[in-house]
Amino acid sequence: MSNFRIEKDTMGPVNVPADKYWGAQTQRSKENFTIGGQLMPKEVIQAFAILKKSAAYANTELGVLPREKADIIARVCDEILAGELGDEFPLVVWQTGSGTQSNMNVNEVVANRAHVLLGGNLLDEKKQIHPNDDVNKSQSSNDTFPTAMHIAGYKIVAEHTLPMVQKLRDTLHQKSQEYMNVVKIGRTHLMDATPLTLGQELSGYVSQLDHGMRALRNTLDHLSELALGGSAVGTGLNTPKGYAELVAQKIAEFSGLPLRTAENKFEALASHDAIVETSGALKQLAVSLMKIANDIRLLASGPRSGIGEIIIPENEPGSSIMPGKVNPTQAEAMTMVCAQVIGNDVAISVGGMNGHFELNVFKPVMIYNLLVSARLLGDACDSFDKHCAVGIEPNYEVIKRQLENSLMLVTALNPHIGYENAAKIAKKAHKEGTTLRQAAIDLGLLTDEQFTQWVRPEDMIGSLKD
Amino acid sequence: MSNFRIEKDTMGPVNVPADKYWGAQTQRSKENFTIGGQLMPKEVIQAFAILKKSAAYANTELGVLPREKADIIARVCDEILAGELGDEFPLVVWQTGSGTQSNMNVNEVVANRAHVLLGGNLLDEKKQIHPNDDVNKSQSSNDTFPTAMHIAGYKIVAEHTLPMVQKLRDTLHQKSQEYMNVVKIGRTHLMDATPLTLGQELSGYVSQLDHGMRALRNTLDHLSELALGGSAVGTGLNTPKGYAELVAQKIAEFSGLPLRTAENKFEALASHDAIVETSGALKQLAVSLMKIANDIRLLASGPRSGIGEIIIPENEPGSSIMPGKVNPTQAEAMTMVCAQVIGNDVAISVGGMNGHFELNVFKPVMIYNLLVSARLLGDACDSFDKHCAVGIEPNYEVIKRQLENSLMLVTALNPHIGYENAAKIAKKAHKEGTTLRQAAIDLGLLTDEQFTQWVRPEDMIGSLKD
Amino acid sequence: MSNFRIEKDTMGPVNVPADKYWGAQTQRSKENFTIGGQLMPKEVIQAFAILKKSAAYANTELGVLPREKADIIARVCDEILAGELGDEFPLVVWQTGSGTQSNMNVNEVVANRAHVLLGGNLLDEKKQIHPNDDVNKSQSSNDTFPTAMHIAGYKIVAEHTLPMVQKLRDTLHQKSQEYMNVVKIGRTHLMDATPLTLGQELSGYVSQLDHGMRALRNTLDHLSELALGGSAVGTGLNTPKGYAELVAQKIAEFSGLPLRTAENKFEALASHDAIVETSGALKQLAVSLMKIANDIRLLASGPRSGIGEIIIPENEPGSSIMPGKVNPTQAEAMTMVCAQVIGNDVAISVGGMNGHFELNVFKPVMIYNLLVSARLLGDACDSFDKHCAVGIEPNYEVIKRQLENSLMLVTALNPHIGYENAAKIAKKAHKEGTTLRQAAIDLGLLTDEQFTQWVRPEDMIGSLKD
Amino acid sequence: MSNFRIEKDTMGPVNVPADKYWGAQTQRSKENFTIGGQLMPKEVIQAFAILKKSAAYANTELGVLPREKADIIARVCDEILAGELGDEFPLVVWQTGSGTQSNMNVNEVVANRAHVLLGGNLLDEKKQIHPNDDVNKSQSSNDTFPTAMHIAGYKIVAEHTLPMVQKLRDTLHQKSQEYMNVVKIGRTHLMDATPLTLGQELSGYVSQLDHGMRALRNTLDHLSELALGGSAVGTGLNTPKGYAELVAQKIAEFSGLPLRTAENKFEALASHDAIVETSGALKQLAVSLMKIANDIRLLASGPRSGIGEIIIPENEPGSSIMPGKVNPTQAEAMTMVCAQVIGNDVAISVGGMNGHFELNVFKPVMIYNLLVSARLLGDACDSFDKHCAVGIEPNYEVIKRQLENSLMLVTALNPHIGYENAAKIAKKAHKEGTTLRQAAIDLGLLTDEQFTQWVRPEDMIGSLKD
Repeated sequence: MSNFRIEKDTMGPVNVPADKYWGAQTQRSKENFTIGGQLMPKEVIQAFAILKKSAAYANTELGVLPREKADIIARVCDEILAGELGDEFPLVVWQTGSGTQSNMNVNEVVANRAHVLLGGNLLDEKKQIHPNDDVNKSQSSNDTFPTAMHIAGYKIVAEHTLPMVQKLRDTLHQKSQEYMNVVKIGRTHLMDATPLTLGQELSGYVSQLDHGMRALRNTLDHLSELALGGSAVGTGLNTPKGYAELVAQKIAEFSGLPLRTAENKFEALASHDAIVETSGALKQLAVSLMKIANDIRLLASGPRSGIGEIIIPENEPGSSIMPGKVNPTQAEAMTMVCAQVIGNDVAISVGGMNGHFELNVFKPVMIYNLLVSARLLGDACDSFDKHCAVGIEPNYEVIKRQLENSLMLVTALNPHIGYENAAKIAKKAHKEGTTLRQAAIDLGLLTDEQFTQWVRPEDMIGSLKD
Repeated sequence: MSNFRIEKDTMGPVNVPADKYWGAQTQRSKENFTIGGQLMPKEVIQAFAILKKSAAYANTELGVLPREKADIIARVCDEILAGELGDEFPLVVWQTGSGTQSNMNVNEVVANRAHVLLGGNLLDEKKQIHPNDDVNKSQSSNDTFPTAMHIAGYKIVAEHTLPMVQKLRDTLHQKSQEYMNVVKIGRTHLMDATPLTLGQELSGYVSQLDHGMRALRNTLDHLSELALGGSAVGTGLNTPKGYAELVAQKIAEFSGLPLRTAENKFEALASHDAIVETSGALKQLAVSLMKIANDIRLLASGPRSGIGEIIIPENEPGSSIMPGKVNPTQAEAMTMVCAQVIGNDVAISVGGMNGHFELNVFKPVMIYNLLVSARLLGDACDSFDKHCAVGIEPNYEVIKRQLENSLMLVTALNPHIGYENAAKIAKKAHKEGTTLRQAAIDLGLLTDEQFTQWVRPEDMIGSLKD
Repeated sequence: MSNFRIEKDTMGPVNVPADKYWGAQTQRSKENFTIGGQLMPKEVIQAFAILKKSAAYANTELGVLPREKADIIARVCDEILAGELGDEFPLVVWQTGSGTQSNMNVNEVVANRAHVLLGGNLLDEKKQIHPNDDVNKSQSSNDTFPTAMHIAGYKIVAEHTLPMVQKLRDTLHQKSQEYMNVVKIGRTHLMDATPLTLGQELSGYVSQLDHGMRALRNTLDHLSELALGGSAVGTGLNTPKGYAELVAQKIAEFSGLPLRTAENKFEALASHDAIVETSGALKQLAVSLMKIANDIRLLASGPRSGIGEIIIPENEPGSSIMPGKVNPTQAEAMTMVCAQVIGNDVAISVGGMNGHFELNVFKPVMIYNLLVSARLLGDACDSFDKHCAVGIEPNYEVIKRQLENSLMLVTALNPHIGYENAAKIAKKAHKEGTTLRQAAIDLGLLTDEQFTQWVRPEDMIGSLKD
Repeated sequence: MSNFRIEKDTMGPVNVPADKYWGAQTQRSKENFTIGGQLMPKEVIQAFAILKKSAAYANTELGVLPREKADIIARVCDEILAGELGDEFPLVVWQTGSGTQSNMNVNEVVANRAHVLLGGNLLDEKKQIHPNDDVNKSQSSNDTFPTAMHIAGYKIVAEHTLPMVQKLRDTLHQKSQEYMNVVKIGRTHLMDATPLTLGQELSGYVSQLDHGMRALRNTLDHLSELALGGSAVGTGLNTPKGYAELVAQKIAEFSGLPLRTAENKFEALASHDAIVETSGALKQLAVSLMKIANDIRLLASGPRSGIGEIIIPENEPGSSIMPGKVNPTQAEAMTMVCAQVIGNDVAISVGGMNGHFELNVFKPVMIYNLLVSARLLGDACDSFDKHCAVGIEPNYEVIKRQLENSLMLVTALNPHIGYENAAKIAKKAHKEGTTLRQAAIDLGLLTDEQFTQWVRPEDMIGSLKD
């Protein structure tokens, strides 16, 4: 018995693996595009399952598809959504730029699987469900693929990226509150500056993430617009009246996401500015997280010859002989992810700018990069949160020593002994490598008690929020 | 008589051009940073003028600066805002990354000019207004420069970029309405596809710009947050109580923009995600405009051997001998601008990601790129609008010929003669290079009248919005 | 019986899957970095196999490792090189930025597998080969990982990318030769211009690829430098004398690539400019291929309402009803790949710029992107070559018609009837939509025969190379 | 008397400022492209002067232009090269993408200025030198502009960028030699690691710049290819036989650069991969310089609470009250420049990828960005060299203290007291915050003398190059 069966399309017969549900068009794409190995993301396939089920029921309600057909199509879609049939989608990202072949892959798998569920056999000449006439009814690749892009993109951002960033933000916020009174030296231009508290420093990161999440949420409105109903060029040719709105309702219902039909379908097929927009917000978060993770590894650097003001969890053996060598590996993973997200944003821009007329044909590369970015950022925030942020602790001893050593505290003396005298103290301390206190006393400008009373870093940090 | 006067700072004397208001610190920067030649943008200088005036009056209201000093500072600021003193700001973008030197440039010019306005002489040892103690009072470079960045960025986006994009959008919308019934061939994958109207095609561009402007507007909230009051590290050291809020009110009043004090000053000094955010939206518009301008030049290509469906204005001599060679020069300028904006966005991201601790020191390069992008996009939209978009006209003859020639119209025959017969007609027409009508009649499948009655592109374009 | 065994490192015991060779450090990384799912590329693992074998024999020759240990280490490395043990390397790219964990993964797998090959059992307390003391002897993660980066990068560029680009280049060159006499209209600014031949047009693409390959080859010298021997910080601490040179020789021998020890090991650990350099050249090729693929799809556009001057192979059903709708799917895959490569180059730049002191810790993300780019470009060239370029054919009829229609040919009449008269002809033809020939005759300026004799596009194309 | 004179072209009359040499086409461009304000770089104008002079003499030698005309054209070109006529080139970068208008600007200015030099008047109806027939003879904008791009790009890289990078490299090399024996702590993952010398650390930077300059030099070969002789579409239509080679020789002679005619003119007009290639190398240098400048500011951070191992020159007042606050302003300018160069590279890539058929119409934006990058990098290296690198000095006291404090030195004890005991010492020292020496003595594992004898950082740094 052969391991292949013969499937046909308008170009003739093709050998398809006997145990697979896909058909001729999937097989042709598989053979014609042996490029890279990046499969069409499973998030897109899952979005297609929601879409096909929604389209089937919309078609039924509009009287153009029998309910039994819709039911069996929906049943296969539910299987896909349950994570089954995972190896039935073998096509790579680097295929036709409309994603047609992945749309046909889904159509073929749903039709053939439905036929089998209905008691048929893959070798039957005629199947009870037709990939084009039934599964793809009232659809075109040109409107289904961008719809799947938006479903998948919205879903991952709303259900993964945002919650994970929020989790990290909440941990940093909690740390910020916890250490709001830990006064430490500030640094500008990487140079010692006037003091602030560790909690204040961390609050800046929290504010960055809050703004980043707001920016990301701002993009969801554009992403919520669905192309479906636009058909081949955006005019809605061959779709029943009311279809675009109805199918969008179904998609919203089945996905649980506030999606709606795009007001302008011509844009929705020909451009993917919504993807560009969301990627831009992810890039902004990457820029923020790069700064945050970089600060944290600098603050944890040492243990002896770095900044050393915080202690981060030790998750792996650092040096086998050197205690205290805790490499900031989570910060490294995070910053690598940020580099990737920033690069992906450029790939998406290049794709977005190069559409022609009624169709942008960089669809797969655009959604692939968006999903990678959204997944990576979410995962990296989760990992950084669990394995690093929650364990951040001040190294009180180092913080205290560096604060006391700081020459910038001399500014507190201005009101008491005047600017000129204060500067004298600082210069002497810098030159001799002593403390301000020592220099002040040596110069006879104030007493030990006065120094203690007047030089109070905790009075130099403004009002603290709680 | 010397062409120089001697100014002093804590490092000693410096020769300053006798006829210039700037002082020692400006002069040092001028000499230490002979890099490129890109001056600190005038928009930043103007923003500083608003800022210094606002700070002066806020200081006065809070009792730390005499009103007469505030008045004279404000008078110089008004001169700057009126476009005077233009050659008093000679520093380049490539200076200290905090922009301190441009802040000092403004402080020095305001102080010295005020002194002269008050009847003093530049050679006076002591000036009536002090650059640091008066003009920079309750300020630090670290909070003034980012404040000036936000004022300048918000202003140019709100007053230049958005109105110019809107103008182009309105022209395209008007054209879209005007040609809503001009049926033409559609193109997907650059290949002939089912028809749509020219108005529909243009409506996609309008929708892109509408979304792009919305995305850009979404970023203004972040940009409206002002760092001023944060002082050197964000704690507000040495600022009077209530200062941050009051000075933001003044800035809002004097600029006419809805600006407000940043809730978190630590972020506002250490990161410039607001600039990253706005640049991301400008980049999205660039991606959109690249597609739009590219489509328009492709649609206008020819006159004989291109697409040729629209006619664009001839602004310059094309070929001296060849009539009809109207080069799409405005589209070329536009797409070059888009390339620049997309590159600038990467420069901004690199700057944004590389802050350290309490200060990001890529401030000048970030605001420089943002202002260039915002200016260029606005100007290019204005130019493209005036010199190209307003003059777009359909080439009715070409549109009609290409539509009639289209083999895709055969789909309209499916309901009448069946898919198989329709395909026969298309194949024959393609093979023989004839029209569908001819092929249909030759095959005896329908009459000339039936063809006229059944193949109606105007019925294939969905419902038209008006 | 348990599915896990217990492995230990300095942090204590860890549960490891009983049937896997990896040890405690691999397992910790696996658990601590659940980010994305992009595994450390197999090319890096293979490079490590070459490296570990080379190091073992170099150590033996230098008297610090018994030959039997080197032999068994080499045997496991050969298994890895033969593609075995494929599921023993479960770590992701997003781990520690030094790649330490993947180095340890290889060390652990080689040691444990060697122990088993020598008759031992994974549950034995003490193994005959030690991952650190034997497999990692005279090495540090800090010099092994960059060495593996260079081996893998050099190998894929030399053995995959360059040959595949060359193959496409050769096909285009052969087509260029074949169609060197097919005169067609030229286009500048997308507008009709003076003629050239199809072969000349294609020769421009060939020249681009020739230059691109030269640029890529230019980068191999930097990539041939190996960090191994630098040890932890570049000083070569704990490596035997002569080791760096010897181990590089071994690597060159076992890999068959002209690799050599880096002259400066400090750079080799702390920076990865060689990766930046090679990625830059891949980006250049992407820029070239974007132009080439874009031209080809524009030239093939139509079949009726596009440029239509070439015919490309039909690999999949286009439209089921419309003959001639051959979507340029290979060009779409190619241009999507180019977008990715251009984005990856930015990710690599971000990684490359952010090293600190003695170590760049963006190693995994840099080599990952380089390998993806090199793989994708090679694959895409191969696919585009096989499924598109080899089948490019002129559409002689369209080429002839558009050439004859061209108004630019009028320039050939200047010497015969003068510029003024020539312009009259062109203007009349443009206005009336007729041919130059018709207009010329109608104006009585020349005869049909004269037109045929004087207007000869084949005389307007310069000298042809063969 | 009017301030304008009337000039004419094929579209009719235009008002041109009476005192300017430019003509109608320049004026039209000036009015039609009021975008940004970035003028066509003077380097391009100067390159055009070389080109026009070369073309004139080549035309003369080939018998198509009288020698007197060539001489007067050359005389004007020499004026331009001498820096005169600087305000005669008012066009911006954002014009037609072929640069035609700047080519015509040069043609018009040269012709009119020549006419005046020959005793004519700008108001003369007929000029003795014709902008098209004489100055532009045997040329097209399509081949002159890319030729000027290559002349200008080659010149700035060879005469500015490379020498300035070399200068900085030489300073760093000299510093590396000078401090080759200054042993200091190494840092990997930002954490304390085994020692190296300051000279070794600096040698890594030298090696980066050496590789970067080699990469940049590698690109010059492509840049040396000149498009001139390709004429409108690359075929050389209307150019005399031998012209391309001869004019390239003249250009080489007059510019003093090893330029030559491009083998393939079709590539030379339609693509600018040479610009992409050179920009890629500049981007690599930017990546290197970002790392170097960033390391240097981190090494100089402090004065009390940073790394503080080197001292950099104080060029401006840091804090007025705090001695030792020397902001690393040159490093900040350098890293901002690097951000710009990295962004510009993306702008160039976007331009490079978007050519169509026989002409790339992103010429001005591509050369503009290349020149800005090359200028900025050269200037920044010069500034960083003069104002920072030459003054770098070790802070011996800090280096010594941090080295002695380092726990990593314990590895030197392994051969003497065994790994276990060495680890005990390190752990005790880390826990108690004491030195290794103290901990070792307290544990009774070795004597003070033994510690001095065995723990010798200077033996842990490998062999030093001289």
